[in-house]
Amino acid sequence: MPELRRDPIIGQWVVVANDQESLTPMAYEKEGHERTHESVCQFCPGREGYTPPEVAAVRFNGSQPNTQGWSTRVVPNKFPALKIEGGLDKRGIGIYDLLNGIGAHEVVVETADHHRDMADLSPEEIVWILRMYLDRGLNLAKDRRFKYIMVFKNFGESAGASVEHAHSQIIALPMVPKLVDAELEGSSSYYKFRGRCLFCDILEQEYADEERIIAQNDQFISFCPFVPRFPFEQWIMPKNHQPDFFALSEEDIMPLALMIKEALARMKACLNASYNFYIHTAPIGYKDREVYHWHIEIMPQLVKTKGYEWGTGLYQVLTSPAVAAGYLRDVDLS
Amino acid sequence: MPELRRDPIIGQWVVVANDQESLTPMAYEKEGHERTHESVCQFCPGREGYTPPEVAAVRFNGSQPNTQGWSTRVVPNKFPALKIEGGLDKRGIGIYDLLNGIGAHEVVVETADHHRDMADLSPEEIVWILRMYLDRGLNLAKDRRFKYIMVFKNFGESAGASVEHAHSQIIALPMVPKLVDAELEGSSSYYKFRGRCLFCDILEQEYADEERIIAQNDQFISFCPFVPRFPFEQWIMPKNHQPDFFALSEEDIMPLALMIKEALARMKACLNASYNFYIHTAPIGYKDREVYHWHIEIMPQLVKTKGYEWGTGLYQVLTSPAVAAGYLRDVDLS
Repeated sequence: MPELRRDPIIGQWVVVANDQESLTPMAYEKEGHERTHESVCQFCPGREGYTPPEVAAVRFNGSQPNTQGWSTRVVPNKFPALKIEGGLDKRGIGIYDLLNGIGAHEVVVETADHHRDMADLSPEEIVWILRMYLDRGLNLAKDRRFKYIMVFKNFGESAGASVEHAHSQIIALPMVPKLVDAELEGSSSYYKFRGRCLFCDILEQEYADEERIIAQNDQFISFCPFVPRFPFEQWIMPKNHQPDFFALSEEDIMPLALMIKEALARMKACLNASYNFYIHTAPIGYKDREVYHWHIEIMPQLVKTKGYEWGTGLYQVLTSPAVAAGYLRDVDLS
Repeated sequence: MPELRRDPIIGQWVVVANDQESLTPMAYEKEGHERTHESVCQFCPGREGYTPPEVAAVRFNGSQPNTQGWSTRVVPNKFPALKIEGGLDKRGIGIYDLLNGIGAHEVVVETADHHRDMADLSPEEIVWILRMYLDRGLNLAKDRRFKYIMVFKNFGESAGASVEHAHSQIIALPMVPKLVDAELEGSSSYYKFRGRCLFCDILEQEYADEERIIAQNDQFISFCPFVPRFPFEQWIMPKNHQPDFFALSEEDIMPLALMIKEALARMKACLNASYNFYIHTAPIGYKDREVYHWHIEIMPQLVKTKGYEWGTGLYQVLTSPAVAAGYLRDVDLS
């Protein structure tokens, strides 16, 4: 018998297979991740002139901007979803509300190597990427038009990646996106009722139940959430209450890089799936610091599960999180 | 400059291309819809024994159940998302809520012809399908464990269809799915504030703006919503306030079939896309009849748009609804 589980944050119901009937990693169709476009890749070293001029980079030996000699490079997206220039011009058309599509949309090229994804990078290289996220996020947050900074990554065709060279994206938005807004609402009403952070309570529950935990270090934990939207979904969360990713302390950067490396490496060894990765953090200048707790959601896109949810608003997850965590834990990374 | 538009029902923000920069139907990648599995198709006439026994059918000349001689046939889903037998057994595990995965999951085989989709059927054939939806919905609604009946259809691979023979699905759920719940919340608070049905007001706005309307008859209208989630998204709505699809009157059935036929035929001629189609209606026994207004949402799944939204909660629609409606209106159906 499958279970209907209600996510405690936004109230989403999900049909979750029971442990006995859960699909194994082998049961999902896999897509290949061949990299065939190196000869024309605009993110590769030596082709810096094909992207808009870089806005930040980790560079070696005093190399000049927009030349070779970098490990991580941030450039404006050539095809931005939103435009950086202009005013918001909030207005209504009858009952409809709209504003100009103002925002920043940047690309973080994660490595100079066309053939490695974030899962293949060293913790030090991931530290550099995180430093770029923080640097750009803090910079964009100064623009008073923006209310939210979203960091995300699409890997593989099923996850919507259109460029195969490893990259993530940073979007600065003039409003708070619905998904995050729903999380803020849910955790606010939990806080009003219980006087505690909902996410901290989720962690307590995860420690108690144990079976969904994948990995831990002193600062971070990764686990398969009790109510996933995708099979083998994985969350990374700071163990201490922290509302804002962009306020990450210097001493937390390496432990986070290690946890991300481990999460992605386990997922790659177990599934080799396309995935979406995104950081949910409090909006810029958010005042209710007790209420929200930043975290990273990693959503494998396994071919069999595609499409169904659009039609129903009802997610169906054919591998239970406890079973998924078991497979991810059992990966031998040595 | 793209626009950021806020959907007036659930508050979702969407980045919508402006009319001048909108992509044409040609700009989207198309997938084929070849039907190659006829020789092993379990929904084809003569193979009635391969499905679970039918629960309803439109049959000719007194043909017997589970034999040939039908136009539309409803059978339990062989691989149901939810199980029909058992109690709900609501319970909590610490902070998590769950219940048994109880529900009905049925398949409506829409036609005996392996090579036609709903867009190709006659209005009379669509009437039969609608009668099956109503018949099964009213029947399942009598089961006191159920709170919601969802009718939906996935056509084509990108929409998650796993069987190529034309079919739709009916799910009876012991809870109201999140998407519908969010619509009920949004339209309830609009009603509290304005004393009017939000959907009726949307229709007034559509009549006034005109440019997003695709087709109308006396009872129904189809239009591209001002804040779509997908390019070329189309809604069908009764012009009069009606909360409950399953209370559809006898005289509305043929006008609705005609409107569905026209909507799907225009979409097929214009895009030939995979799509999801679902009916949003009030929950079983819903008391606030002034608040909700049933409608059909048709979501083309055009390959270019896949994946992006998971990562951000921010939808990007590269064809404005006014431009999309223009293309759909301009189709010559004669």
